[in-house]
Amino acid sequence: MFKGIIDTTLRDGQQSPLLFDSFKYSFSLEDKIKLTSGLLDLGVPNIEFFSPIVSEHERRDFVKLRKKIKAKNPNTKLLAHCRCNLKDIEEAVKVGFDGLNLYLNGTSQAHVHIYNQSLVTLKTEITSIIKTVREKYANLYLRFSIEDAFRTKEQDMYTILDTISGYINTIGIPDTVGVATPNAVRELISKLKLRYPHVDLECHFHNDRGLAMINTVTAVEAGISYVDASIWGLAERSGIASLTGVLFNLSEIDKALVKGYNLNLCYPLNVLMGSILKLQVPYNEPVSITNRTHIAGVHHKAILNSPKIYEAHQLQQFGVTKNQLLLGPLTGWNLIYYYLREFEYYDISQDQAKVITREFKQLSKKLSKKVRPEKLLIQIADKFKLPKIHLDREYIDYRIENLT
Amino acid sequence: MFKGIIDTTLRDGQQSPLLFDSFKYSFSLEDKIKLTSGLLDLGVPNIEFFSPIVSEHERRDFVKLRKKIKAKNPNTKLLAHCRCNLKDIEEAVKVGFDGLNLYLNGTSQAHVHIYNQSLVTLKTEITSIIKTVREKYANLYLRFSIEDAFRTKEQDMYTILDTISGYINTIGIPDTVGVATPNAVRELISKLKLRYPHVDLECHFHNDRGLAMINTVTAVEAGISYVDASIWGLAERSGIASLTGVLFNLSEIDKALVKGYNLNLCYPLNVLMGSILKLQVPYNEPVSITNRTHIAGVHHKAILNSPKIYEAHQLQQFGVTKNQLLLGPLTGWNLIYYYLREFEYYDISQDQAKVITREFKQLSKKLSKKVRPEKLLIQIADKFKLPKIHLDREYIDYRIENLT
Repeated sequence: MFKGIIDTTLRDGQQSPLLFDSFKYSFSLEDKIKLTSGLLDLGVPNIEFFSPIVSEHERRDFVKLRKKIKAKNPNTKLLAHCRCNLKDIEEAVKVGFDGLNLYLNGTSQAHVHIYNQSLVTLKTEITSIIKTVREKYANLYLRFSIEDAFRTKEQDMYTILDTISGYINTIGIPDTVGVATPNAVRELISKLKLRYPHVDLECHFHNDRGLAMINTVTAVEAGISYVDASIWGLAERSGIASLTGVLFNLSEIDKALVKGYNLNLCYPLNVLMGSILKLQVPYNEPVSITNRTHIAGVHHKAILNSPKIYEAHQLQQFGVTKNQLLLGPLTGWNLIYYYLREFEYYDISQDQAKVITREFKQLSKKLSKKVRPEKLLIQIADKFKLPKIHLDREYIDYRIENLT
Repeated sequence: MFKGIIDTTLRDGQQSPLLFDSFKYSFSLEDKIKLTSGLLDLGVPNIEFFSPIVSEHERRDFVKLRKKIKAKNPNTKLLAHCRCNLKDIEEAVKVGFDGLNLYLNGTSQAHVHIYNQSLVTLKTEITSIIKTVREKYANLYLRFSIEDAFRTKEQDMYTILDTISGYINTIGIPDTVGVATPNAVRELISKLKLRYPHVDLECHFHNDRGLAMINTVTAVEAGISYVDASIWGLAERSGIASLTGVLFNLSEIDKALVKGYNLNLCYPLNVLMGSILKLQVPYNEPVSITNRTHIAGVHHKAILNSPKIYEAHQLQQFGVTKNQLLLGPLTGWNLIYYYLREFEYYDISQDQAKVITREFKQLSKKLSKKVRPEKLLIQIADKFKLPKIHLDREYIDYRIENLT
């Protein structure tokens, strides 16, 4: 049964190449305060951070963040993404994490090239560490992940998990390199649920093939307890499933899955990330104004009559309260007529709108950054010396709010 | 059986809000020449354009493009996305299209709000038009699409298709508003294949929920003939499946599906779009250098030992011939050591690298746009007055080519 989302914006999200492309490199403490505050307001119950050993900065930031987060919502589970060694674990416990997301790469190539040890030796070491930690910290939340689970041999996975499953809360099956498909997801989850019925499962799907979202949704349908996500899907390489996209998809499957989340704060959270990175919310992010923006002339006509024709999803509930009908070379006379009448209050006939549209279409092909299409349209319309309709300010604001 | 991709970058792609966000509004003729040339080099067999009635510009551009495309590859099928009325159809035929992508919105709300006609009236009109066109142009390729197919009542779809299926080459089932799921895709395709066994099927999945890619791949697995895609997935709202992402996924399923495509030109095509829009290739595009970029310290160590540990897919074959290990606050000493020795030729010990790493991690948190992380690292390293290793230029170039 689905128990909730684990946000990893401040861990895997800080590993996104987009932070380098935007010359950001990592989030500042101020960014982190804003982002965690947004996550709490949205109702995200679990937040993952770096292990404090990653750097002095990350440690210091976490200590400050922890205080703020706990003051706002003491129930939020704060998890450290932590290598499975006693030194790192003690450091994480010391700074006040509620739980540890421990991990080990499960593939044999990793055993050779990262750990330089056999699976059996690794298993013995891990089991001893996990037992020690569990005895010392009875209430510490412990997840153990088989990194690259979808390329790990099933038997190798069991070799490690069989001896530790009694001491951990959750088994993680991250698709570290993005090779999973929905069928593989269903198969692995059903096998693990059968073998470890009393342990929760958690997934983390990378987007290398563009399948992170469907794999995440499939995992929930297959009965996983926790799914990882991040704002904008930011994570190493091409990222993971986007947090707000996951909430949107889960709500389409069953509203009960997203009970407890303040969905109307989804879009503001995406906009917050945009303001931090100084970028627009990505055009392929499901919860975005882009998904309420219409360009094609045939779409404009329909949207003006009945928005539902090209807006199947109720994005209002995710905080996208406006939509956009953009003026450009594809605009048909319907929108030009509507725009000049409803936004600019020209007393205009449909025939006049058709003539203006022809000129606008031609000239708008050569628009530079300096002239907005709206301005060009007004210039053309003004040549016609059309009278203006008189409207009260209050009525004008109401109409603009209704469309934009 | 899968017959090929239909690229719609110059039709639905020009309806992407990203063209407005980048102050581009539409592609120039020069852009279009570059893009179609890239599509032909890649081996894309079908290209969709606007109906010439959209604007004088689009018509003129098409006439020029057609000449260039046919000179390069006379077999490329050029298709007009065309309303189903005789006037528009004649205009498209006149400018030399090889085929028409006709469409009608199938939902009852559209019949009321767009066409203001009953389904039966619409059916009679469409059937008459299609028969007329087929009689007049025996060899013209004709697709007829039920727009918003996944919200259209099954019986309404049959009402239209039953009377025209004998006159058309292909039935289109676009998911115009992005509501489809893989199960719905499998179900609809299997029903239509059974009912219209001699007609090809074509799909076009919008990405409103982030499921465009899996729906497209699922359609191919379910035996569809044609799938729509565009460069970067650009299209109305949050777009459709990305062309190169589709090729990547299909090649993972079965190499035979992508026979005839010059896959190594995938990445250059994505870069071409970036140069036109003056934007980086999106971080969530499957065929991108982003998907070969590693930030996390633990990943760096593994990649230096054996790239396959964190690079499951052979992106070289798609033209991504380099990878990137980026220096930043998360960099471990392994990469610092490797970078200073292999790129900058310092004679450095591992212990020295560890000390330098500590300082670099601290200072790199505060990097501004003006200082690149590489420069900062050299500044720190130079304080140690390390000697340089002498290497022949040829050897240096070889090593750099191997890593970057």
